[in-house]
Amino acid sequence: MINVAILGYGTVGSGVVEVLKTNQDSIDKRAGKKINVKYVLDLRDFEGDPVQKLITHNIEDILGDEDIKVIVEVMGGVEPAYTFVKRALLAGKSVVTSNKELVAKHGAELLKIARKNEINFLFEASVGGGIPIIRPLNKSLTADEITDIKGILNGTTNFILSKMVEEDLDFETVLKQAQEKGYAEKNPEADIEGHDACRKIAILSSLAFGMHVNYEEIYTEGITHITKEDIKYAKKLNCHIKLLAESKKIKNHVYAYVAPTMINEKHPLANVNGVFNAIYVNGNIIGDVMFYGSGAGKLPTASAVVADVVDAVKHLDRNIITFWSTKEMDLINIAEVSAKVFLRIAYNDEEKAKNKVEQILGIEKIVELDNVNGEFGIVSNEWTQGEIQEKITTLKQSESIRKVYNEIKWEY
Amino acid sequence: MINVAILGYGTVGSGVVEVLKTNQDSIDKRAGKKINVKYVLDLRDFEGDPVQKLITHNIEDILGDEDIKVIVEVMGGVEPAYTFVKRALLAGKSVVTSNKELVAKHGAELLKIARKNEINFLFEASVGGGIPIIRPLNKSLTADEITDIKGILNGTTNFILSKMVEEDLDFETVLKQAQEKGYAEKNPEADIEGHDACRKIAILSSLAFGMHVNYEEIYTEGITHITKEDIKYAKKLNCHIKLLAESKKIKNHVYAYVAPTMINEKHPLANVNGVFNAIYVNGNIIGDVMFYGSGAGKLPTASAVVADVVDAVKHLDRNIITFWSTKEMDLINIAEVSAKVFLRIAYNDEEKAKNKVEQILGIEKIVELDNVNGEFGIVSNEWTQGEIQEKITTLKQSESIRKVYNEIKWEY
Repeated sequence: MINVAILGYGTVGSGVVEVLKTNQDSIDKRAGKKINVKYVLDLRDFEGDPVQKLITHNIEDILGDEDIKVIVEVMGGVEPAYTFVKRALLAGKSVVTSNKELVAKHGAELLKIARKNEINFLFEASVGGGIPIIRPLNKSLTADEITDIKGILNGTTNFILSKMVEEDLDFETVLKQAQEKGYAEKNPEADIEGHDACRKIAILSSLAFGMHVNYEEIYTEGITHITKEDIKYAKKLNCHIKLLAESKKIKNHVYAYVAPTMINEKHPLANVNGVFNAIYVNGNIIGDVMFYGSGAGKLPTASAVVADVVDAVKHLDRNIITFWSTKEMDLINIAEVSAKVFLRIAYNDEEKAKNKVEQILGIEKIVELDNVNGEFGIVSNEWTQGEIQEKITTLKQSESIRKVYNEIKWEY
Repeated sequence: MINVAILGYGTVGSGVVEVLKTNQDSIDKRAGKKINVKYVLDLRDFEGDPVQKLITHNIEDILGDEDIKVIVEVMGGVEPAYTFVKRALLAGKSVVTSNKELVAKHGAELLKIARKNEINFLFEASVGGGIPIIRPLNKSLTADEITDIKGILNGTTNFILSKMVEEDLDFETVLKQAQEKGYAEKNPEADIEGHDACRKIAILSSLAFGMHVNYEEIYTEGITHITKEDIKYAKKLNCHIKLLAESKKIKNHVYAYVAPTMINEKHPLANVNGVFNAIYVNGNIIGDVMFYGSGAGKLPTASAVVADVVDAVKHLDRNIITFWSTKEMDLINIAEVSAKVFLRIAYNDEEKAKNKVEQILGIEKIVELDNVNGEFGIVSNEWTQGEIQEKITTLKQSESIRKVYNEIKWEY
């Protein structure tokens, strides 16, 4: 029998207890040992709940108990999670976490401690909820050098964008509905401004490229400026707008960003809708692979946590090597990276405006909406993103152009 | 340094050598040891090729060499692969294979020998080419009880069906093109009759449900009867026709089949086109997840083989538990399983024919094509597949009906 402790009895923590109970037989069989939850750390008492007898308010009960071999950290936030996890690893206990803030900020250091102590620090649930992605990156794509990872990594924003398309609604209306249904937080900033996706792509990049990617250096843009009209333009261009997080290797350098992006409707990522997430990976041998599933939610996340617990139990005395050095990676400034961009141009003089745009940015595609007068949308030629900003500034000075706005990254 | 031997220097075998060379540094780093190919077994000499100095024609050179810790079997076919692999495992050498015939037929027995000797028998490349699916099933979905696996598991048939849709061509024309391009074999039976997909779903079912599924007992139907008109009907029904392989648990029983199936165009599997494959898995906790990638091809397959070699090297003295007992699973007879079905009805009397079909099978949807006179297509109510066959026989006896044909499984 292996004793485990769970730090935090919130949504994920209670999900973990539920999963261990629901599938106890098959889980114990796969782990090769019976998994027993000995403690649950929480400030609350949960009076009357079966979990009550496992509750402790004191982390020392857990850290000081030699019987505890695996600790599940599902409190969220950097502190006190970081202190607890670090102490647990230093005490020779393996740790499983779903905490993306913790992993993005301190993953490299915590992995190093685990490696030194021949135990494990596992975090499958920190990215993509239930989607198996961390383990495949570590264990399945080992013959490849990863060249590109791009994904829809946030369920809330994908739900909002999908609903805007399906029901022809504007951002604010859908956000309100999502909040009412519990798909978006009361304070939705972390999701809608892209911060959540940013931490996740930082974790994936660090794993794929083997060096620490500082999430604070990743260019991050949310979806709050996306309008109904943008979505109509996208449709006319046979595209879907998705909040994409990408990390790509060009020669020996990596760039990373989070930004709404127009993707061709035939691309597998374009058809990932609702709260589903997906991660598209390119390796230099395997080509393209994609992993798809529920990006969040109590049970999918708990499933990933428990799968990590099983792996931790199967490797109690052996570190599962993970390449993520503490050395920090220099990301390329996004301004130096080439891209095409979708732009809306409101004009004073249509013909002159079109000529001007063609002359400055180049026009790969041009599109107009039936119900929107006085403007057109274009897809530009490819320039570095620094050049694009300069060219937009130039366009804005043209008399024929009233407004240049709502630029959206164009992928295909 | 770890010495490995490769049995067979065909497409996959030469791919493995190429991958090990291309990404040698990162592969050795992930394996924790340098991987050295010491022998390649082949009947040919490959004179002038750098591989020539590694070639042996004698399996005893390999089996008798204590230096060899891992053997890669990429010969294909059951014999002599089975004899070689079994002897290798009995001699304490781990084996990695891409051979789906071997795994489908003897997987349970070979896994048992590996388990007994604390070595490994790995076969990620036997299903889905480069797509990581065997390892995720074994290692990532361990918290779940799998309830359903369905997939597009054959690249050739998916290429043919995709091309028939895109270019409005008939089966024979596209098959010929596929043969010219090397996407289909000269003797394409194993692909187009569904046998290849059948072996792969047998392997996945055995792993997911932990008992040996005999591929000979899986209902298997190919795509040779699918016509241009069927595809037009599907389009009108907002569907795509895919060769689906499915294995599903109902209560404590499992049924499995391979058959062309109409899938709603919004389902992620519907948008898997060309030579790509995908596997959709439902677990009782995680919900739906999907794995997508190149289902075949020299390099993707070699990538999966080499990833297994890395895993074998990392676990030289420890069996990675795989649940696939030698006990044979009783599959439910497909005739007892409920389904809806698409059918084409050529009539002598339109109104009477429609009434008859409504009365016997029930009509969920009805659809007619602009350019096809004298017939309509329907989606039936749900019946067991045995009942459906009986009802079709009854319909065929009706005077108002000239022909009932091209039934296709209806999924959504």
